[in-house]
Amino acid sequence: MAGFARLVGLAGGTALADLALAAPAAAQDVAGVSPEGQYVLNTLSFLMHGFLVVWMAAGFAMLEAGLVRKRSVGTQLLKNVALYALAGIMFYLVGYNLMYAGVDGGWFGSFAVWAPSESADYAALVEDGSAYASASDWFFQMVFVATAASIVSGTLAERIRVWPFLLFTAVLTGLLYPITGAWQWGGGWLSERGFADFAGSTLVHSVGGWAALAGVLLLGPRKGKYGPGGAVQPMLGSSLPLATIGTFILWLGWFGFNGGSQLAMGTGADAAAIATIYVNTNLAAAGGVLAAMVLCEILYKKIDLTFVLNGAIAGLVSITAEPLMPAPGVAVLVGAVGGAIVVVAVPLLDRLRIDDVVGAIPAHLLAGIWGTLAVPISNGDASLAMQALGIVAIGGFIFLASLLVWAAIKATVGLRIPEEHEEAGIDQVELGMEAYPEFGPGLAH
Amino acid sequence: MAGFARLVGLAGGTALADLALAAPAAAQDVAGVSPEGQYVLNTLSFLMHGFLVVWMAAGFAMLEAGLVRKRSVGTQLLKNVALYALAGIMFYLVGYNLMYAGVDGGWFGSFAVWAPSESADYAALVEDGSAYASASDWFFQMVFVATAASIVSGTLAERIRVWPFLLFTAVLTGLLYPITGAWQWGGGWLSERGFADFAGSTLVHSVGGWAALAGVLLLGPRKGKYGPGGAVQPMLGSSLPLATIGTFILWLGWFGFNGGSQLAMGTGADAAAIATIYVNTNLAAAGGVLAAMVLCEILYKKIDLTFVLNGAIAGLVSITAEPLMPAPGVAVLVGAVGGAIVVVAVPLLDRLRIDDVVGAIPAHLLAGIWGTLAVPISNGDASLAMQALGIVAIGGFIFLASLLVWAAIKATVGLRIPEEHEEAGIDQVELGMEAYPEFGPGLAH
Amino acid sequence: MAGFARLVGLAGGTALADLALAAPAAAQDVAGVSPEGQYVLNTLSFLMHGFLVVWMAAGFAMLEAGLVRKRSVGTQLLKNVALYALAGIMFYLVGYNLMYAGVDGGWFGSFAVWAPSESADYAALVEDGSAYASASDWFFQMVFVATAASIVSGTLAERIRVWPFLLFTAVLTGLLYPITGAWQWGGGWLSERGFADFAGSTLVHSVGGWAALAGVLLLGPRKGKYGPGGAVQPMLGSSLPLATIGTFILWLGWFGFNGGSQLAMGTGADAAAIATIYVNTNLAAAGGVLAAMVLCEILYKKIDLTFVLNGAIAGLVSITAEPLMPAPGVAVLVGAVGGAIVVVAVPLLDRLRIDDVVGAIPAHLLAGIWGTLAVPISNGDASLAMQALGIVAIGGFIFLASLLVWAAIKATVGLRIPEEHEEAGIDQVELGMEAYPEFGPGLAH
Repeated sequence: MAGFARLVGLAGGTALADLALAAPAAAQDVAGVSPEGQYVLNTLSFLMHGFLVVWMAAGFAMLEAGLVRKRSVGTQLLKNVALYALAGIMFYLVGYNLMYAGVDGGWFGSFAVWAPSESADYAALVEDGSAYASASDWFFQMVFVATAASIVSGTLAERIRVWPFLLFTAVLTGLLYPITGAWQWGGGWLSERGFADFAGSTLVHSVGGWAALAGVLLLGPRKGKYGPGGAVQPMLGSSLPLATIGTFILWLGWFGFNGGSQLAMGTGADAAAIATIYVNTNLAAAGGVLAAMVLCEILYKKIDLTFVLNGAIAGLVSITAEPLMPAPGVAVLVGAVGGAIVVVAVPLLDRLRIDDVVGAIPAHLLAGIWGTLAVPISNGDASLAMQALGIVAIGGFIFLASLLVWAAIKATVGLRIPEEHEEAGIDQVELGMEAYPEFGPGLAH
Repeated sequence: MAGFARLVGLAGGTALADLALAAPAAAQDVAGVSPEGQYVLNTLSFLMHGFLVVWMAAGFAMLEAGLVRKRSVGTQLLKNVALYALAGIMFYLVGYNLMYAGVDGGWFGSFAVWAPSESADYAALVEDGSAYASASDWFFQMVFVATAASIVSGTLAERIRVWPFLLFTAVLTGLLYPITGAWQWGGGWLSERGFADFAGSTLVHSVGGWAALAGVLLLGPRKGKYGPGGAVQPMLGSSLPLATIGTFILWLGWFGFNGGSQLAMGTGADAAAIATIYVNTNLAAAGGVLAAMVLCEILYKKIDLTFVLNGAIAGLVSITAEPLMPAPGVAVLVGAVGGAIVVVAVPLLDRLRIDDVVGAIPAHLLAGIWGTLAVPISNGDASLAMQALGIVAIGGFIFLASLLVWAAIKATVGLRIPEEHEEAGIDQVELGMEAYPEFGPGLAH
Repeated sequence: MAGFARLVGLAGGTALADLALAAPAAAQDVAGVSPEGQYVLNTLSFLMHGFLVVWMAAGFAMLEAGLVRKRSVGTQLLKNVALYALAGIMFYLVGYNLMYAGVDGGWFGSFAVWAPSESADYAALVEDGSAYASASDWFFQMVFVATAASIVSGTLAERIRVWPFLLFTAVLTGLLYPITGAWQWGGGWLSERGFADFAGSTLVHSVGGWAALAGVLLLGPRKGKYGPGGAVQPMLGSSLPLATIGTFILWLGWFGFNGGSQLAMGTGADAAAIATIYVNTNLAAAGGVLAAMVLCEILYKKIDLTFVLNGAIAGLVSITAEPLMPAPGVAVLVGAVGGAIVVVAVPLLDRLRIDDVVGAIPAHLLAGIWGTLAVPISNGDASLAMQALGIVAIGGFIFLASLLVWAAIKATVGLRIPEEHEEAGIDQVELGMEAYPEFGPGLAH
């Protein structure tokens, strides 16, 4: 029963591996799941939760297609399809083993192409019931790295060219993300110090946000976005329905993102943990929505739907660092703070002349920091100091490394489409086609 | 084998709890699933089927965004995001325990905030194998109450203001739905009398429909919808693709809605029941589609796609009261009658000057009544009289209580946007932004 | 351990049934899954993977709605909803038993309406643990036949009338697809000769492609598509976001399509196989995307998003004949060839004046042939000669039979909308309504 007591009580997020190990013992008192049964159920969890996270790639594509102007929709869609494809191939060629193979308290793993290895897993299965098909784990981790890359594409929309963007994506998904991933989830130095990030508020969402921030600083704003004297030109998203279905897709996919991060479903303790994670994930998003709505109403007497959608996302990002331990009411509040961050930070970025087209920096980077700092509220094993260390270490590395990579790309092949083409739109430059050819001229025509 | 014989044979929908209890005994003859294994699988069913129902929130959002005019799309999206968030929080704060905690043959449960309680479940697991994580049950039931609220938002579209709508949503999801839910699924007085509603033709869909009907009577039609002498002004939906993807999402989500309502997946009997439910659910929707198409062709020599989409939904609603017992052919016919109801009832509502923007009253309320009355066709344990009693009791309570709540809101904060702004559209009033800012003027400009 | 050795090693796709039988024996050494547990998990696999394939119906609908012109969007949506409904009913009435009941090495099964039969399954469960709910298998196979029908609708878009199209759909899903399905998956003559098609590169995708090709030859191109002297009039798709979300939906659904085709999930061997299938399926799609992008860039200096989307689909179709045996890198290459086929073949079809509106023939028929021929690369039990035999036999039968059926429909009720209405668009003829009534005139107005 110890596993359950700790589940409901004070068990830390980092103690989940212990829980998974402890559960079979507890379970045997009540006729537990057989080792092979656990293997099947653990694998199923990775696959089912993994396909939910695959779906998030479509969510980002739709969210971003809805939030860019009509003239840029086609390119934004292309980038999202291409980055998801590329992330998978890079994670297969380099990323996975760099993140997970033999990190052993260090800084990164091995540079070897990933290959599935079932027999080893099968032996482990006999011993402790915590095994799973290695391919299912790869699948689940792969969709996480794609998520980080998706975050970048939104911020830089409408002016970054396709191939330079994909070049950065290859580096991010093959090298940068796996390295900081190795520090924590690969069993590296940060995990040994007690940093806690259950499903990636920092490791995935802030990583994407830091890479995006570095990029936008070197890329600059869209032409005409910022006028003299602090004037900000609104550049409205082309389609609120697309932005909304994108958000709903992300919300749905997040059950996979957080639920699958339990990393097992073969015991009652694991299943109960996943259920709790679903509930907290949903309530945090709900908190983000309502906080953003109320703040909008108070500040503007109108409700900007894009703030509400980003409020949902920020709520989800906020709970991602610790979706298991909070009581439901705490989850609502953690998410609500995330939603409030969006409403405050989006205009702030404009004042700093940082042109983050879809609001990804507030929703993913800032809410990710908040969520990571909030872990000690409900997880007694986490400390604010260690959380801050993880945020600074990972953020510092990703931001600086990204800045270098972006600068190298800018200095060689270049980043932006030619200024004279920006008015007509990036779709004409990169695709030579329009996203909506029969729906009348865009603003630029 | 008794469980299986009854499954294939004459076992009543209300006897499913018995089935779940009987199955382990039968299963032990053939090496059954361990109690902990059942706990995992039961929990998984709630989670997997629950996330399919989460997806229905997106389905309603897209369906409604596609069926309102362009000027109202943004507000309709906002309402759907907000109601889903609010329903979850209200069900956590009030609804769940009011519906399920200690109803004991009575009228409602307790007014206590819901809190997960794993240890109790775990003890139950040892005894009879029918346990599950309490959080997974909450998650599944929560998405049901959100579905009821979604139905309301479609009917009242384009003229009801956001906050009054959400005020009603809070009452519906926190109080009204849980009270009638307690009568049946909470183990209250109606369930003791033998009313049968497997997954909620009446408890969810008609409840949403009655609440919508009460609202639309007090809200009145959209300005200009009905002219003198019975003239009806067509107000076409802005996007058939959105309406169609919304319908496909609902269709997909319905496998979760009906399949998860088996409430267990830990035995062969339960898995077989869920499989049968999937088949019948799909065939009923197919029947609804084809019936609506054929009727449209006969009556109008053209096929109105919105009738076909609502035909699918009506087919799904119709089979929801009893998706397990019918033979496949019966499921087709039950759904086909639902589809026919839509084609007949949509124009009828217009003749009554009830401006149900998306056709939710025919598809959810009327098809829900039909589906509930059709239960005795395939379920020998149900009687037409008891089905009628349940329909009248639940419908009467929800309709009258909703009427009171709507009237109170109307008398205090008001329901509608100012008449002079209705032509320009609700999005300008409530959001201050357009759903498609680059796609040319709407009709009103 | 034999099952695992063969899984990782050289085991043929056609030996998977053996694997499923062998696994429980291996599993018992390490405390395997009980027979009833396997029954539940096998059934769950059919249901979960089946609902992912249901989702593909929405994917085809959105892809096709995005790739037709605005004036045809509503009809294209209607056809996709209707064909999915009709396919289910035909497969229930005729197709399933024709494909699976008593084929025994022959040409087709029985003409009897399908009825679920749980008790037989339950007895089998006792013996070998490979049983599942018969309704879950029907559900999974039904969504496959709907996929084949979806392929046809895309090619023939914008000019074929609704009812003649549905008449053909009824024949395809009730008779033609089940007959060639019986040859292989029903245990007919082709399976006895060692043809290998794991999840249907030929049996589903090429079948749809052959039926479409036969149809388009008799239907002819859209009015104005081909001018004198080889001139090709571009007819751009109305919405790239819809085409893109359609592609993402298909990509997601394909995990169900290929993963569920393992036909079992009750053992560690099966779960590991499904995980490998997910990985290969994803990597093949990624290969298709990148190959199409690079080829586009080289050939045209721009990237046509529709080529990239079809590249993803072609990659998926290519791996479908053998998603289990290839090493990950091989999967990337198999998919990449599929993506290249699209870029080369789409213009080629135009040169042949075959007006395939959505590019379904390259993506499904040609990539399907490639994928089927590629099986021996990684599956030692398959031979090129047998693969060619299967392709020719199934392709020949479906193409000729389809030609006959299309000709019969053309000679009786006719196929096309009246030529004088084609400019105004099929939606006005068939639906009497527009897909986007408030978004300005289409090209034809």
